[in-house]
Amino acid sequence: MPDANKEYLLGVDLGGTKILTGVFDSKLEFKGEAKLSTKADRGVEAVIERIARCVKDAADECDLNLKQVRGVGIGAPGAVDTESGRVIFAPNLPGWKDVPLKKELEKLLDVPVFLGNDCNVCTLGVFDQEFKAKPKHLLGIFIGTGIGGGLIINGDLYCGHNLTAGEIGHMVIEVNGPKCGCGNRGCYEALASRTAIFRKIQTAVKDGQKTILTEMLGDSLADMRSGDLRKAIRKGDKFVEKVVAEAAEFAGIGVANLINILNPEVVVVGGGVIEALENEMMPTLVKTAKDHVMPGTMNGIEIKASKLGDHAGITGAAVLARRGTA
Amino acid sequence: MPDANKEYLLGVDLGGTKILTGVFDSKLEFKGEAKLSTKADRGVEAVIERIARCVKDAADECDLNLKQVRGVGIGAPGAVDTESGRVIFAPNLPGWKDVPLKKELEKLLDVPVFLGNDCNVCTLGVFDQEFKAKPKHLLGIFIGTGIGGGLIINGDLYCGHNLTAGEIGHMVIEVNGPKCGCGNRGCYEALASRTAIFRKIQTAVKDGQKTILTEMLGDSLADMRSGDLRKAIRKGDKFVEKVVAEAAEFAGIGVANLINILNPEVVVVGGGVIEALENEMMPTLVKTAKDHVMPGTMNGIEIKASKLGDHAGITGAAVLARRGTA
Repeated sequence: MPDANKEYLLGVDLGGTKILTGVFDSKLEFKGEAKLSTKADRGVEAVIERIARCVKDAADECDLNLKQVRGVGIGAPGAVDTESGRVIFAPNLPGWKDVPLKKELEKLLDVPVFLGNDCNVCTLGVFDQEFKAKPKHLLGIFIGTGIGGGLIINGDLYCGHNLTAGEIGHMVIEVNGPKCGCGNRGCYEALASRTAIFRKIQTAVKDGQKTILTEMLGDSLADMRSGDLRKAIRKGDKFVEKVVAEAAEFAGIGVANLINILNPEVVVVGGGVIEALENEMMPTLVKTAKDHVMPGTMNGIEIKASKLGDHAGITGAAVLARRGTA
Repeated sequence: MPDANKEYLLGVDLGGTKILTGVFDSKLEFKGEAKLSTKADRGVEAVIERIARCVKDAADECDLNLKQVRGVGIGAPGAVDTESGRVIFAPNLPGWKDVPLKKELEKLLDVPVFLGNDCNVCTLGVFDQEFKAKPKHLLGIFIGTGIGGGLIINGDLYCGHNLTAGEIGHMVIEVNGPKCGCGNRGCYEALASRTAIFRKIQTAVKDGQKTILTEMLGDSLADMRSGDLRKAIRKGDKFVEKVVAEAAEFAGIGVANLINILNPEVVVVGGGVIEALENEMMPTLVKTAKDHVMPGTMNGIEIKASKLGDHAGITGAAVLARRGTA
């Protein structure tokens, strides 16, 4: 039962399309959640109000009122000044430039708010919740619509000079490769993200490729999700299997690059694509990474799939809130 | 005049083909140097004896005896355990696996010896000698026969879990690109190093390409050096200019990748290729990097050529010795 003390931590995962809020007790045990669409096109103020609403909904879902909440953590997609609590810029949220999100949310909620970059926050969640013996250096890679990363160095989040470290999704790994949303070609996320996989499938289908996916979803493949790929592969669709395997290979090459550069103790791979396709992708990803690293660099280094799945963001945000209010 | 106190620091740059030792006073002022070929094929023991000889030669060159030397620093090419002073493995030095270099050299020289990875040591030299206001996070990139890197994070060398961090030369940036010495394709150093440039020129010349270089060096282009490329470009050789510009573009894409991933405050680019071709390569390198980074990640970040040139290794090794004996 919820008690009257401020014993709860709320974690918010602010994305380009949805806002997810999780309720956790002080031991970081998950208690419940609420979800809202972001409606980013309605502008900054409207989105901030929706975040506040989602936070209130989540508390209500768990029969809590905000007076029982010690702190709210929030992971936002973009460059974030954690100290001032400002979103410096967020490419997927139109109009978000130098937004004092912490201050605005504290006004609406009357609870202390702590802000971080979404992938850093996910990495923090993974680091805090998935390891008893804490690795000294950990790299988190999150493969979804795009690809993002977070770095723990010497046991602490590393954010770099402009607080943008971990933009691994725009590491070029195939100079003349497919066009990326950022304008470059052959970025990691143009080759190994859900967007990359879906585009490849849709292009092939337009060119006459047969796949079980069109039976499942219709010829336009609208509303295709990562889980549909898993279903198609398990039904024996060799084409989808091949496209997913190619993405896993690219994912592994990116992991090898990052191990060569950063030599972390652990690489944790998460995000929606890995959550849906762990069994289909991880063996190829790990093998490709091992085949591509320099000799000696992989000794004792573990590459593993995150167990937190879709909860990495809200869990990490709750960890952020716990750290902030400790 | 040298005095009787132990006021001097010696820095050794151990390479696959040559050993360079520099003599520095306690203020890191350069006093003189000695050079020997490595003769790596003669085996580990012979190379260690040659390092000791080169150290003695350098001291003698400056009218010093080893009793006036406070410490010897050494940068070695490969994975190095700085604490135990062992070279764990060194791909370019046949037979070098778990070699107690510090201990063996101390036996031969009776002076304290301090060991580091060559690119880390170069980065340390650049960090110590080229910046009055120390950047918090610095990336050193050294372009020569291969490409190596070193990382200063939070003001300190970052070496990673297996002490191999900074193997940026084997970051894949063109999946189906030219074959690299490591066995993979399209590694950074297979596209932007001296080896990559020379191979491109030699292949084109075999295919009938005309260049001033063959007039300068003969048809076989034996003994071609980076400086020859500069001379050819300044004599108006458009072919060499184009090959060097392409390498500078690849170099810039690699820098962009690393800025996206690491977001350091400063990127220093050094090594023999940049020393010889700074004016020819740096503007293209910087422009390409800026064109490829994510918006916001480059704010206030400086990309500059190292001023230390060939002395980065010996200077950094002397810094290592000063740190060790402080």
